Amino acid sequence: MLTVDVGGTKIAAAVVGTTGEILAKSRGASPDSSDEVVLVDAVEHVAREALAEAGARAHDMEALGVSCAGIINTHDGVVVYSPNVAALRRTPLKAMLAERFELPVWLGNDATLAALGEWEFGLHRSVQDLVYVTVSTGIGGGIICGGRLLEGSCGAGGEVGHMTIDIDGPKCACGRTGCWEALGSGTALAERTVRRLEDGEVSIIGELSGGDMENVDAQIVAIAARQGDALAQEMIDVTAFYVGVGLGNLINIFNPSVLVIGGGLTKIGDPLLVPAANVARERAYMTSACEVEILTARLGDESPLLGAAALVWGLYGGKW
Amino acid sequence: MLTVDVGGTKIAAAVVGTTGEILAKSRGASPDSSDEVVLVDAVEHVAREALAEAGARAHDMEALGVSCAGIINTHDGVVVYSPNVAALRRTPLKAMLAERFELPVWLGNDATLAALGEWEFGLHRSVQDLVYVTVSTGIGGGIICGGRLLEGSCGAGGEVGHMTIDIDGPKCACGRTGCWEALGSGTALAERTVRRLEDGEVSIIGELSGGDMENVDAQIVAIAARQGDALAQEMIDVTAFYVGVGLGNLINIFNPSVLVIGGGLTKIGDPLLVPAANVARERAYMTSACEVEILTARLGDESPLLGAAALVWGLYGGKW
Repeated sequence: MLTVDVGGTKIAAAVVGTTGEILAKSRGASPDSSDEVVLVDAVEHVAREALAEAGARAHDMEALGVSCAGIINTHDGVVVYSPNVAALRRTPLKAMLAERFELPVWLGNDATLAALGEWEFGLHRSVQDLVYVTVSTGIGGGIICGGRLLEGSCGAGGEVGHMTIDIDGPKCACGRTGCWEALGSGTALAERTVRRLEDGEVSIIGELSGGDMENVDAQIVAIAARQGDALAQEMIDVTAFYVGVGLGNLINIFNPSVLVIGGGLTKIGDPLLVPAANVARERAYMTSACEVEILTARLGDESPLLGAAALVWGLYGGKW
Repeated sequence: MLTVDVGGTKIAAAVVGTTGEILAKSRGASPDSSDEVVLVDAVEHVAREALAEAGARAHDMEALGVSCAGIINTHDGVVVYSPNVAALRRTPLKAMLAERFELPVWLGNDATLAALGEWEFGLHRSVQDLVYVTVSTGIGGGIICGGRLLEGSCGAGGEVGHMTIDIDGPKCACGRTGCWEALGSGTALAERTVRRLEDGEVSIIGELSGGDMENVDAQIVAIAARQGDALAQEMIDVTAFYVGVGLGNLINIFNPSVLVIGGGLTKIGDPLLVPAANVARERAYMTSACEVEILTARLGDESPLLGAAALVWGLYGGKW
């Protein structure tokens, strides 16, 4: 199985064996172009590198599974809109890639497929009700309900990052106000920190970022927090609170047995995850809060690549 | 099939025929007691009235389907907690009713079963992805994902009313702040109106309620709005906005083909439903917003009674 993962900064590809082992892998930067053909060229290039690495050819593969950031209409195989991949707008990515590789192509949202990967290969389907949330530049999610992927009527289900949690909150990149992503993402953490630094607050974050506010990101704030920096610790606490509020909503709505948190912000570790989990449990109804196990993702960056494989096998096997 | 619906103010029972027709019906007030045995006595009484009305006996029935307000652990058949039915707290309602009627009993949350009723008998399963929301004293919901009821790990899924939509918002009856129910329910509408009247605002609502603030409810506000009362119209607009915010969240999360709105507040009609639907579509991502059809519930008060029948048949038939 050949799979690719198309994101805002990178493209990754893998040849995946029948038990979910990655036989070969390749990655490259996403092209800085708004031309969808340039992007598809880059995807083809990275995928063919993975094939070469595995000593295989496209027609040895049974299918191509594609994970992509953005809002995807899985019925039509079209990327409707992708906030972080400017080249993709009403792009018939499935059809374009099918032509390049002469393979059946299956396309899904990256967070949705990461959920599927974590469920299939991280948890070996040991649970039937799973909510996966990725907290990174943005916030995305994927949901398994009763042992099946929540797809929705056109495959756009699981878009949890733009759930309003604070109607009077800050403006989100999507144009609305108070989205979970605008309050709990890594971007929100960095922006909130920069505002405080610009207001003259003393912190070693200034030093760690070389005095350039553009360099302030979640990782630098995490390093500062580990060194005991008060501002950094406060910023992580505030972000953890907002992450927890959204998680609590999802626990109430889905009553999952497992909630898996992935994405870059999990690298902050316990200082973020423990308070976020506590807030989530406090804000959810007791029955659902008691029932849920909160875990960090096991597959890391490979979850969408593996989830894309699980998608294809699942569809072939008629499992969902 | 015998079904009952246990709510905060009333208990209803029905004998339901195999195609969903109601052959006999009975109803009574919920007892004003915190004793669960008194409540179960009342449920038995109403159910036996419906049986008598149908000229049937309990052992003619294949099962008893029970709809109940509150948080329910469907695995154990226990009502964990019910904000509006004080007698129910960790009550093994399924076991208690099974003993009374010597029938297999199936128990579900009233909003969840209303969703199932609307899907099965209102829409005849013409869609696979449905979100049902009841906006009444509180806000509840039930969800069909990919043609199956969303139950969650212990049957408490679909608890949408306590989704935080305004983290700094008013306190909810559940003890948390900014829940959808605390902002968009009929109770919230009435409380908001009373505060404005107490602040001395001029409105015919005062007159319609006989000068007693206790009488102010959504129906009186609706009557005043139809007579052109400015405060009443504003209160309905504000409520419609909050209803719409929560609906928008659910459209993003579930990407449903149909969203059904039921509950007492739908009696206000277009002045509430049209702006609420508009806000919901504006706040949801375009793909999902374009896809969803927003409808009012078709079965009215009977939806939980019919949903309880659908639950039993579905389980017997192994459909979900």
